[in-house]
Amino acid sequence: MTKWVYSFSAENTEGNREMKPLLGGKGANLAEMSSLGLPVPPGFTVTTEACLDYDKSGQKINDEISSQVREALEQVEKVTGKSFGDDENPLLFSVRSGARASMPGMMDTVLNLGMNDNSVQGLAKQTGNPRFAWDSYRRFIQMYANVVMGFNVSMLEATLEDLKEARGVKEDTELTSEDWQELIVVYKKIILEETGKTFPTSPMDQLWQAVAAVFGSWNNPRAIKYREINDIPHEWGTAVNVQSMVFGNMGEESGTGVCFTRDPSTGKKVFFGEYLMNAQGEDVVAGIRTPAPINEYSKNESNKKLKTLEEVQSSSYNTLVDIYQKLEAHYKDMQDIEFTIENAKLYILQTRNGKRTAAAAITIAADLVTEGILSKKEAILRINPEDLNQLLHPRLDPNAKTQLLASGLPASPGAASGTICFSSEAASLKAENGIKVLLVRQETSPEDISGMVAAQGILTARGGMTSHAAVVARGMGKPCVAGCSDMTINYAEQTVKIGSETFKEGDPLTIDGATGEIMKGIVPTISAKISEEFASFMRWADEFRTLGVRTNADNPEDTEVALKFGAEGIGLCRTEHMFFAPERILAVREMIFSQTLEEREKALTKILPFQKSDFEAIFRKMKGKPVNIRLLDPPLHEFLPHHKDEKLELAEYLKISLEEVEARAEKLHEFNPMLGHRGCRLAVTYPEIYKMQVRAIAEAAVVVVVEEGIDVLPEIMIPLVGLSGELKFLRGEVEEVLKAVWKEKGKEVNTKIGTMIELPRAAITAAEIAKHADFFSFGTNDLTQTTYGLSRDDSGKFLPEYQRRELMRHDPFVALDQEGVGFLVTHAVREGRKTNSSMHMGICGEHGGEPSSIDFCHRAGLDYVSCSPFRVPIARLAAAQSALKNS
Amino acid sequence: MTKWVYSFSAENTEGNREMKPLLGGKGANLAEMSSLGLPVPPGFTVTTEACLDYDKSGQKINDEISSQVREALEQVEKVTGKSFGDDENPLLFSVRSGARASMPGMMDTVLNLGMNDNSVQGLAKQTGNPRFAWDSYRRFIQMYANVVMGFNVSMLEATLEDLKEARGVKEDTELTSEDWQELIVVYKKIILEETGKTFPTSPMDQLWQAVAAVFGSWNNPRAIKYREINDIPHEWGTAVNVQSMVFGNMGEESGTGVCFTRDPSTGKKVFFGEYLMNAQGEDVVAGIRTPAPINEYSKNESNKKLKTLEEVQSSSYNTLVDIYQKLEAHYKDMQDIEFTIENAKLYILQTRNGKRTAAAAITIAADLVTEGILSKKEAILRINPEDLNQLLHPRLDPNAKTQLLASGLPASPGAASGTICFSSEAASLKAENGIKVLLVRQETSPEDISGMVAAQGILTARGGMTSHAAVVARGMGKPCVAGCSDMTINYAEQTVKIGSETFKEGDPLTIDGATGEIMKGIVPTISAKISEEFASFMRWADEFRTLGVRTNADNPEDTEVALKFGAEGIGLCRTEHMFFAPERILAVREMIFSQTLEEREKALTKILPFQKSDFEAIFRKMKGKPVNIRLLDPPLHEFLPHHKDEKLELAEYLKISLEEVEARAEKLHEFNPMLGHRGCRLAVTYPEIYKMQVRAIAEAAVVVVVEEGIDVLPEIMIPLVGLSGELKFLRGEVEEVLKAVWKEKGKEVNTKIGTMIELPRAAITAAEIAKHADFFSFGTNDLTQTTYGLSRDDSGKFLPEYQRRELMRHDPFVALDQEGVGFLVTHAVREGRKTNSSMHMGICGEHGGEPSSIDFCHRAGLDYVSCSPFRVPIARLAAAQSALKNS
Repeated sequence: MTKWVYSFSAENTEGNREMKPLLGGKGANLAEMSSLGLPVPPGFTVTTEACLDYDKSGQKINDEISSQVREALEQVEKVTGKSFGDDENPLLFSVRSGARASMPGMMDTVLNLGMNDNSVQGLAKQTGNPRFAWDSYRRFIQMYANVVMGFNVSMLEATLEDLKEARGVKEDTELTSEDWQELIVVYKKIILEETGKTFPTSPMDQLWQAVAAVFGSWNNPRAIKYREINDIPHEWGTAVNVQSMVFGNMGEESGTGVCFTRDPSTGKKVFFGEYLMNAQGEDVVAGIRTPAPINEYSKNESNKKLKTLEEVQSSSYNTLVDIYQKLEAHYKDMQDIEFTIENAKLYILQTRNGKRTAAAAITIAADLVTEGILSKKEAILRINPEDLNQLLHPRLDPNAKTQLLASGLPASPGAASGTICFSSEAASLKAENGIKVLLVRQETSPEDISGMVAAQGILTARGGMTSHAAVVARGMGKPCVAGCSDMTINYAEQTVKIGSETFKEGDPLTIDGATGEIMKGIVPTISAKISEEFASFMRWADEFRTLGVRTNADNPEDTEVALKFGAEGIGLCRTEHMFFAPERILAVREMIFSQTLEEREKALTKILPFQKSDFEAIFRKMKGKPVNIRLLDPPLHEFLPHHKDEKLELAEYLKISLEEVEARAEKLHEFNPMLGHRGCRLAVTYPEIYKMQVRAIAEAAVVVVVEEGIDVLPEIMIPLVGLSGELKFLRGEVEEVLKAVWKEKGKEVNTKIGTMIELPRAAITAAEIAKHADFFSFGTNDLTQTTYGLSRDDSGKFLPEYQRRELMRHDPFVALDQEGVGFLVTHAVREGRKTNSSMHMGICGEHGGEPSSIDFCHRAGLDYVSCSPFRVPIARLAAAQSALKNS
Repeated sequence: MTKWVYSFSAENTEGNREMKPLLGGKGANLAEMSSLGLPVPPGFTVTTEACLDYDKSGQKINDEISSQVREALEQVEKVTGKSFGDDENPLLFSVRSGARASMPGMMDTVLNLGMNDNSVQGLAKQTGNPRFAWDSYRRFIQMYANVVMGFNVSMLEATLEDLKEARGVKEDTELTSEDWQELIVVYKKIILEETGKTFPTSPMDQLWQAVAAVFGSWNNPRAIKYREINDIPHEWGTAVNVQSMVFGNMGEESGTGVCFTRDPSTGKKVFFGEYLMNAQGEDVVAGIRTPAPINEYSKNESNKKLKTLEEVQSSSYNTLVDIYQKLEAHYKDMQDIEFTIENAKLYILQTRNGKRTAAAAITIAADLVTEGILSKKEAILRINPEDLNQLLHPRLDPNAKTQLLASGLPASPGAASGTICFSSEAASLKAENGIKVLLVRQETSPEDISGMVAAQGILTARGGMTSHAAVVARGMGKPCVAGCSDMTINYAEQTVKIGSETFKEGDPLTIDGATGEIMKGIVPTISAKISEEFASFMRWADEFRTLGVRTNADNPEDTEVALKFGAEGIGLCRTEHMFFAPERILAVREMIFSQTLEEREKALTKILPFQKSDFEAIFRKMKGKPVNIRLLDPPLHEFLPHHKDEKLELAEYLKISLEEVEARAEKLHEFNPMLGHRGCRLAVTYPEIYKMQVRAIAEAAVVVVVEEGIDVLPEIMIPLVGLSGELKFLRGEVEEVLKAVWKEKGKEVNTKIGTMIELPRAAITAAEIAKHADFFSFGTNDLTQTTYGLSRDDSGKFLPEYQRRELMRHDPFVALDQEGVGFLVTHAVREGRKTNSSMHMGICGEHGGEPSSIDFCHRAGLDYVSCSPFRVPIARLAAAQSALKNS
């Protein structure tokens, strides 16, 4: 015979925490705590299999289940000494759903089940508090009508309001026992009139209907949708937990509270919590009464004058201390415990792993290792890598009041406040004068770099999670909210309308790059500090990970931040970001406007010293760690002047007319620049550009090797290769320059030459391309754009609708699309190694800092990931977790 | 012992035409003809293996080879009765290279080898013509010095010029025997002085050095490059053909000529050719003397007064007739034969399959089948599908004089002349007044359709083979030259500079869309006619092909053309092309500018009747053949007004300000429209657009079924799907509308719903997508753009450089990239059929009309290809050839 029902009580507990599939999370946990001998109100769990059987049998609870429920119920009566529906000492139940995974959308809790006109008397007698008993009965009817009978309770609520008005009172608490009795009569009448059904008075009927309602709620539309979105199989079903009620509001010897086994904001190993006497769980949350501290440590400004539980009822407090120690040791993690005291007897209603700040999480995990409770491996797997963001960036003071204006995409974490500026120039100017500014732009372009550097944070109206603003801001570790569609900038008038309010230059705003929120005024922030605890925890992670972690950095400042965070090399140094400094851009534009090879070479000669000094500085910082330098990638028109004064300046510099400047710029226009004349295509038409860059790299490498006596490991990366012939040709060009420099300088520096895999065709034909490459670096930003045929700069217009319609679970520019883009990566890794087994492979797209993508990279067999400096710790931890999970 | 040398002569021929790998094409053919008993001057072939051995042995001819050459040479002496280097009756040779495949870039011919101070006397005696003998000797020295000794012969040529000046003559023919003798002395002296080497007088030395030179030329840079480009293995090597000389210039009983076994311009079964007495091959080509007709049929205006060979030397003519009949029967194809008559004896020097016009090719193939020489299969495999283009489009009169201005891409075949116009409006206006115009644009956009319809042909400065202009022009069967970079349009001044000349509106120009040439003035053209012969040939092709052939057509006119050419359905009906008619575009713009669902639906209601009537007209024409209709695909801003007057018109129509029109247009701007808000993404955000289109399709289908009593087979295609969820969602929307219409009209029309596979992600995840699709249609234009990350509209700037550097063999927008894009197609076909074995699959990209791509589609297992109406016959033939080649 199938076992459909599992009891839990001090005397007889049949389940345990391993049985989540059968008993659901809640049921398994109640059983576990009962087995540990904790004072859990006894009850029983009807299994998930019973739920499935209910469905299969045409919404009927079969006889086997009924009889097992009755047996279990009798056991509870025996253990508690109470009787279900009794008018002396009534047994009452809470009935709750409980699936294998936490699942909103299913039936809520029904409390006080078993109440009727008889048992209400029993409860009144037992508690000596008829008002409490009748209020409990009233609440039960309302809850049951709503949840089990599916009755819209607004009519009942209206009746209650009428009654209060008639009595001239404002609060429920002012109503008397008699008022509740009167109301219950009306309630029952309304329910009968509206549903045609008498409210069930038999406790057993109440129970069967409640169980059936829980089972039925597994298939309500909200629950089905939730499962579809979260990949929860429909075949799991839900269990039902039927547990005897205990009351914290039975009098001054009763109470309820919540406690944490450690401090959830600092992680400190101290017992911490709040409680209220003569109250139910809701009352603690509702905030009408100020909860009291359970002990001295839990005192704060607002509650320090209240008595602690330790003082008020030391027996219960001491029991609680015993219990929390037992629970933490058992669950090997900081616990969040709910307790109720009924007539000075302590009951535990729930325990779960407590939520905590990232700092606390690290401290707790480290302490648990020190205490011998956790292994290092377990500690590492405990921390959600994304949570480290809290530790690395400033954040809003949680106690500050804020006025939300609108939300955009949470593009780069951290909070920032400042007066707003609409141009890079204005931002730089104000910042030089010591004013904190926020840069507000339609979108940013490489020209805005100086303004972004000057600003505290960046706010844009267009662009997605990997728009220029987002990528650069993350690289700088600077807060950014991008693509706020609810915002309209009027550059002409220097104003921005956010939501319904308009702001002008100089107005103060605050952004939270972790949530995407835009707030009015200056909101105070808390800055981040890196603790030794954190550093040591990260060293443990490094012991386990096999994936290398590099950083994307274009300048010595970013390089330094990344090294501090543990970067093991540079995975992507974009050479073009170096082109925008004011003293360089004219030479760059001269190069672009050249009409002959000679002119172009002349301009390139001017750029060479700048590039060389940039590379020197980076090589010096990296002290022998590999530096992967991508040769020029963006289309040339990205470097063109946009404003008239810039155009005039350029015209003067080149000694040509403004019209000619505009005509030459127009010639560079492209319909789809992303798919245009860029990357290695530039070098096929103008090989002299890459030759200059390679010369700068080689000369810089020699200087640093000679002057510092340290190793330099340059990796020269050729972007946007789609044809093996491109790489073959350009490798030849690069090698020629390298050879020339080594010969000139009398010194050779070991230099690798490879390519980015960022086009589907490159991934598909990786075996051919690998023949000419020392390494592959997966440029998953562009690979995602091309694989999806989706421009990240334009996708902001419609992706929100995709997410609303649940057509896309994750933004593919944030979490690597493993099914589509991942297929190409896996294919390229396999094919590339087929023809070139010694090559090393990494990823340099934004995905290199995102944990699920890092896990994919580990499984795909990459050698390293590369990410923004501020994401290096996240990547190190995620990589360690992948190694542990996949070992 | 290896056999290194193969003789050919009437007495002893050791090779045959199957031995091309060993003897090269030329050697095998000489052997074949010798075996057939034809009068081929005897000789021998040194094998390709000898070439490889030469290379392996450090550029030495081994002893085995030397001795076999000597033996073969003795045989030739025996057969001819001449002696190598003899001063009475000298044997002279021609030495030629001959690889397995025809291969320019290797050593040229050396004639008269074996001449020296002795044998020149012999030749003089033998011919009684010392001048001829000394001239032959002089020519030999010059040729040998150049080709074998690698001597730059410009000094020799200068000496000859000096001599002519000294003698006061202009032509070589005016020099005497003595002059040549004198010159030879000087030649030898110069060669000795410049090279330090005595000119070899020993015939055997001459032979060894010439053979070695041929072998060496296999590895000269030009030859290596040629092999790399054409995928010819370096391991093939070249053979050397050593053949005894015959002279057509020995006197009036000698001569030379070329003949065709059928008329190469009409294909008519008549013997056709030209000859010259007392002349060498070069003289026929040089055009100094007018060649005479070989028979009555070969007479034309310029040669009709000359005597025919039949009259002049009937014995030779009769022999030639015997021979040509024998050769054609043997080679089963029209032959192009070179002959030489030496002292009234006819020799055959070469035979090969003759070049012919497409019309002739069809006629010949059909006749050969009728004559029982060829099977239908063989006949079908004979015709190059691309050649059919000649039959379908007008072409330039080959006799017309032309003045070339510049060249662009041969974007759509056919020749067209007209006065130039720079706008669609001007073109339409002039055309209405009966003036033939050429539309000249920077590039075209859908707004230019009416101008393109009105124009004879289209010429653009930008854009590639699949630019808007090219695709639409091919669809219309209208000549187009695209992307002429040597052309600058000045719209303001209404002028265009082509090369160095400037033209203004109204000036006449001519374009040849088959070659890409742009010519000054009006060049006369010849129009195309489709013969019954052609139609019947195409029916044979249809018997063998298994691939269906559909057409891409958006209107009844194109549909009619395509049906005439044998289209079996519509593979792509682009609904957006229908939006640009003047009476519709305002409603379309109103729809785009709508700010609420209600406004949008109101505008769509205006468009519905237009779409419905379009579909009705097409369904009527197609009479039950399937019609695949793609729902709206391009980004909405493609429909926006560009000119101020259009904007004003729209502002008035919508009752908003010009500024508001411009502001709303600006909001639609995208960075990369190709990867932006288009295709099914439009329908995810605005489902009402597709709903209107589906309603138009369904209502039109019902009307035609009911009124005509014929079948209608609509296929509704949802474009740009990348996620299976998109198709699932939109299929639901489409089905809902269909059901509603069937119910309203009381009639159901069987309608398929499927998708375009045009994004790498769609191809990769085809198994999931196929679950919601009745068909796949591969949109290989966009699939190529995304797989390569290459915008076809922008690629014109750098692809020419790719082709110059030989990085790309074919424009991937013309011939499907089988390695990259093809990988995705093959993957999608396999994966799609895994989950939906009953689905049908086709291709609707431009590649559907290109033979190598069609062959790929056949092998990939597609059900049909779809192409421009004018390419339907080409596709039918190519499909038949694929079926035959792959069966």
